[in-house]
Amino acid sequence: MQPDPDMFVHIVKTDVDGIGVDGKPCKGVIVRGAKICNSNAPYVDEIIVNPTKFMGKGDEGYAVAFALPADWDGVKLMALPGLHHKRKHLEAPFAKIGDVESLTIFDDVFVPEDRLFLNGYDNPDVVQYAGYLALMFAHFHRHSYTGCKTAVSEIIASQAALVADVNDIAKAEHVREKICDIIGTAELVFAAGQASAYRAVKFPNGSWVPDEILTNAGRRLAGHNIYHEYEILADLTGGVCASLPTEESFYAPETAELCNKYIIRNPEYTAEETHRVMRMMEDKLCDAFEGAQCVAGVHGGGSPLMETITMMSRYDLEELKKIAKYLAGFEGVECPRYERATATPRAMLDRFKKTQK
Amino acid sequence: MQPDPDMFVHIVKTDVDGIGVDGKPCKGVIVRGAKICNSNAPYVDEIIVNPTKFMGKGDEGYAVAFALPADWDGVKLMALPGLHHKRKHLEAPFAKIGDVESLTIFDDVFVPEDRLFLNGYDNPDVVQYAGYLALMFAHFHRHSYTGCKTAVSEIIASQAALVADVNDIAKAEHVREKICDIIGTAELVFAAGQASAYRAVKFPNGSWVPDEILTNAGRRLAGHNIYHEYEILADLTGGVCASLPTEESFYAPETAELCNKYIIRNPEYTAEETHRVMRMMEDKLCDAFEGAQCVAGVHGGGSPLMETITMMSRYDLEELKKIAKYLAGFEGVECPRYERATATPRAMLDRFKKTQK
Amino acid sequence: MQPDPDMFVHIVKTDVDGIGVDGKPCKGVIVRGAKICNSNAPYVDEIIVNPTKFMGKGDEGYAVAFALPADWDGVKLMALPGLHHKRKHLEAPFAKIGDVESLTIFDDVFVPEDRLFLNGYDNPDVVQYAGYLALMFAHFHRHSYTGCKTAVSEIIASQAALVADVNDIAKAEHVREKICDIIGTAELVFAAGQASAYRAVKFPNGSWVPDEILTNAGRRLAGHNIYHEYEILADLTGGVCASLPTEESFYAPETAELCNKYIIRNPEYTAEETHRVMRMMEDKLCDAFEGAQCVAGVHGGGSPLMETITMMSRYDLEELKKIAKYLAGFEGVECPRYERATATPRAMLDRFKKTQK
Amino acid sequence: MQPDPDMFVHIVKTDVDGIGVDGKPCKGVIVRGAKICNSNAPYVDEIIVNPTKFMGKGDEGYAVAFALPADWDGVKLMALPGLHHKRKHLEAPFAKIGDVESLTIFDDVFVPEDRLFLNGYDNPDVVQYAGYLALMFAHFHRHSYTGCKTAVSEIIASQAALVADVNDIAKAEHVREKICDIIGTAELVFAAGQASAYRAVKFPNGSWVPDEILTNAGRRLAGHNIYHEYEILADLTGGVCASLPTEESFYAPETAELCNKYIIRNPEYTAEETHRVMRMMEDKLCDAFEGAQCVAGVHGGGSPLMETITMMSRYDLEELKKIAKYLAGFEGVECPRYERATATPRAMLDRFKKTQK
Repeated sequence: MQPDPDMFVHIVKTDVDGIGVDGKPCKGVIVRGAKICNSNAPYVDEIIVNPTKFMGKGDEGYAVAFALPADWDGVKLMALPGLHHKRKHLEAPFAKIGDVESLTIFDDVFVPEDRLFLNGYDNPDVVQYAGYLALMFAHFHRHSYTGCKTAVSEIIASQAALVADVNDIAKAEHVREKICDIIGTAELVFAAGQASAYRAVKFPNGSWVPDEILTNAGRRLAGHNIYHEYEILADLTGGVCASLPTEESFYAPETAELCNKYIIRNPEYTAEETHRVMRMMEDKLCDAFEGAQCVAGVHGGGSPLMETITMMSRYDLEELKKIAKYLAGFEGVECPRYERATATPRAMLDRFKKTQK
Repeated sequence: MQPDPDMFVHIVKTDVDGIGVDGKPCKGVIVRGAKICNSNAPYVDEIIVNPTKFMGKGDEGYAVAFALPADWDGVKLMALPGLHHKRKHLEAPFAKIGDVESLTIFDDVFVPEDRLFLNGYDNPDVVQYAGYLALMFAHFHRHSYTGCKTAVSEIIASQAALVADVNDIAKAEHVREKICDIIGTAELVFAAGQASAYRAVKFPNGSWVPDEILTNAGRRLAGHNIYHEYEILADLTGGVCASLPTEESFYAPETAELCNKYIIRNPEYTAEETHRVMRMMEDKLCDAFEGAQCVAGVHGGGSPLMETITMMSRYDLEELKKIAKYLAGFEGVECPRYERATATPRAMLDRFKKTQK
Repeated sequence: MQPDPDMFVHIVKTDVDGIGVDGKPCKGVIVRGAKICNSNAPYVDEIIVNPTKFMGKGDEGYAVAFALPADWDGVKLMALPGLHHKRKHLEAPFAKIGDVESLTIFDDVFVPEDRLFLNGYDNPDVVQYAGYLALMFAHFHRHSYTGCKTAVSEIIASQAALVADVNDIAKAEHVREKICDIIGTAELVFAAGQASAYRAVKFPNGSWVPDEILTNAGRRLAGHNIYHEYEILADLTGGVCASLPTEESFYAPETAELCNKYIIRNPEYTAEETHRVMRMMEDKLCDAFEGAQCVAGVHGGGSPLMETITMMSRYDLEELKKIAKYLAGFEGVECPRYERATATPRAMLDRFKKTQK
Repeated sequence: MQPDPDMFVHIVKTDVDGIGVDGKPCKGVIVRGAKICNSNAPYVDEIIVNPTKFMGKGDEGYAVAFALPADWDGVKLMALPGLHHKRKHLEAPFAKIGDVESLTIFDDVFVPEDRLFLNGYDNPDVVQYAGYLALMFAHFHRHSYTGCKTAVSEIIASQAALVADVNDIAKAEHVREKICDIIGTAELVFAAGQASAYRAVKFPNGSWVPDEILTNAGRRLAGHNIYHEYEILADLTGGVCASLPTEESFYAPETAELCNKYIIRNPEYTAEETHRVMRMMEDKLCDAFEGAQCVAGVHGGGSPLMETITMMSRYDLEELKKIAKYLAGFEGVECPRYERATATPRAMLDRFKKTQK
């Protein structure tokens, strides 16, 4: 039991009179609670709220889903200023990257009935669908991650390859092994997403839902590797990124020439190019925003632990175990023709509903 | 330079008179040398020989490819007897698994000209194709591995799940995490093979050749994980598999009852079922054949190091590095639209041939 | 609750008349049950039995410790024949290594009272000491492991270094990295044992008891690495150990010369030396006894999971957390002078007894 | 060959007249070059310069060691402003942590002869000692690291334990496993340092020099684990550290109450305590200074790769290989009594000097 009932967003009052999104009077409900870790929410036009987990008896008010304009009355966005790498002299695309994270608070907010998609408070019958919505959200988030994370790793691999070259160690055996680790992760995560899409199942509403096991296996690999990828960057860059003279030192008349003289490593890169690469690596490895990116790489869409839980609750272990039972010679167990069934949130919902009866 | 010129198979004499596979006189060549690590070669009808690496000037005689009946004169198969788990009482499919490994020696063997597919000795122009054949062999071997290894891991996962249940620890968090590791590897390796096939390129001869980066990324992951998978099995099985009383103890009148009494762990499994599972785990974890399977899991089709070399020599790092150069603000580097090109042995051959000119 | 009350060794009858070890009539108790995974028990003169875990009310009969001659009436040793590497021609010390594992069954065995060290059945007050004995046993076992495992790893490192040299890859960067991994583990495990002994506490009976955290940290590292060490051996040896022609092939007149010719890799090693090394690696990597050694490397003295449990139940986390509380600025938390207290089973017992009051 | 001869610090002129540290005229030399990654150099009174590597013929000018006051003429410190966590409201010790890193440039600096400890320029005989000084520097740095890194890990473990408790997940099995990983590393690194000191050798000058293998094994383990430790912190903290509302939001009248309401997780911690912990974790995981600490954890005192190189160049592999040769049955190889010799830079120097003759 949560000590504070408002910790999850819930309906606290129904049959309330208010004003709709179209400006006209209408009926609706009042919701209260907060949603944490909302990347980019302060940019968006509409905020969509979903339940977070499977729900049952006693959870009626929490079985709620809706969409509201982001500037709606009572919706409070605790936004973090977009963290980015500040530069004075050395402009570069990498120096302009950032985002806004937020905590979204619903401070007794009116939700017009035409914006209310799930209301367990007034219709206890739909409480059973709360978990399904949570799963669908997580699932599509994780599947999109298999594309997004591939790009994240490819950028890391490109930075690793460039800094290794600037440090003139690109041909060393261990360097190639480490870059290959990053590329391998990118390729495997992408392959997981693609194979998962290939096994997609068409749902009644017409949308195609990818296979959950593969999607989660891909997201899980990504989550397990993100810190290791930054570790490789640190390894290949060297301590210079943590002790690089300030930008000012590179531009002050008294020190500019000396800083540029001593920054060079591989003569195939000019002082400015070397400086640019090392400044980028400082921004990558010694930086608040990139630290947050690592944390997001672990938790975005659910941490590896969540993928383990999803995979293990969806994978049909009983069917799999028949292989071992057959091999061990269990009486009456025939050699199974094993083909892993495609797993989707829908199947989970069906299983759940069967349990309820 | 190899001290013994016969270490690789090579042509030692040409324009030799002999008898063909059809029993009729014909021209041919004499080959000498040996091929190591030939799984299952003693079962086959025909033995096919390929070059092993890229070749150039001075390697003419080694640029040789041919096929011969396995019982051909001078072909000597040093076969290891199929190692398997011997049982007296507890018959089970797993107790009958085994294979034959071999060293194949060509002790001055006549190859009829219609069985000779590559002959650099007489046609130095074709020496450049030796490496291509080696690559194609490795590539298809590794791609088939993405299917084969998936089944290997699924069997391991099925045994892990069964033994965990027999030990009554199946619901423990760490157990589910470990089984998920195995399943995740199976899924990712399979996904790599499938995505690799999806990107396949049609070759002039009509065959479809899968993408090399993905194939190798999948095989590499498999090779990196095989010992870890056996480690998980050892972890979940417990020391009992290394100290299980002999089969005789379970069937001797004086001890049978006691052995059966004390083998039980989870009352949902009978004494015999528990014994069957633990005997299977002994055969899996404390066994010459399965030790060889681990070694094969590292080296079959080429070890992870070979996959790293292949991936890194085929991946277009220069193209990738442009992303980092753009982000760092290198002069004149536009934001690239990065799409990894499909990599095939053919492209490697083309690049190689361009270098030669 | 265990379904079969005999699964742990327990006293089933007391105040029994019998014959002592000295052949004279005496009082005693009857014990029943079994002990699993007893390495080398069939060699020993005396078998010592200890409780396995913490015990409380209801466990009286299980709080039992005693010592008996190994050939005592009713003591049944289910011994596995010493597994070893059989050779016909190539004698070598490594070919003679083996041990005997066993399951020890106490089939209603009379224990004379002078051989009974703990008897909770008749003295419920001593039940609280059962866990202490279990801990002491595990602790000394794990501490001895820090010496034993160092030698195990050093032998593996010596084999790795030799086979790398025979394969002529000893100077490759990745080879040195891998051998360094093994040496590093050996050194760290030994250091843990030594530092643990350095912090030993003198107990009332005069014996010195090493620090539990360090002992367990060392054993845990060893357990986490054993399979990886065999993996490195497989990696450096190559597939040849899994497909080496039989000993007979190396000595049969028809094939001896050919086998010896083609086994050579590094000309600094003769054919026989190369054969000897590869045969040893076959015995190491593709062998029932060595498989059992891997399992023992995970479980002997308790698996890494047991070390985690011991470390985490003994480490004073509350004291440690004060550092973080101080750093975070918790009200009233001063900067602690943190020194980890030495942890011993005695302290555990004291804590346990305090809980009981 | 380095394209710019000034990249390493070297003597460019000797027999120069100048002013000594005592303000009196004296002879001396002129040095030029730079030293990178000098943590805390801007705080110190004296800057000590050592050679960086083994040197031989042609390196005479680079074989130079000296000490100078930090504000000496021509010594230019490119200092990075102490990076720290800025707070406006929530003062805490952790918010005040920082250091200064620097690049130290010697812009044609006069070194008085009484401050010159090694001068290969004028005395080519001493060039051979350059590498020895480099080794000694690295060795003591790495040994001190075994103490320093233990504290770093203990702080991380204390933060991990606290945040797990605040998140109310402290008892979960995986959480205890992860905290145990951090504690285990702390203990093993410390044990390596202690065992290394225990094996110290007394040098002619009276100082005790710890064993190099153990020192490097400890430092190597630390370097391999630092990113993983931050990963564990990210895992146990959750995404909240990357999306925590700003300090201002927690103190602004309009939002303070809401922010405090929704930050609570474990009711045993007040809103302010929870906020304090999460703010500390933001400072730990999403922060420029802590990013630099990770990089320092990889590279400070030499990265794991340097420890591998040191260990492998110092470990007597030939002696170790005798074990394997004996086990394999090599002719004339007796069973060795293996005891690893203590390794010190001195032994390295002696070996080096023997090679030179």
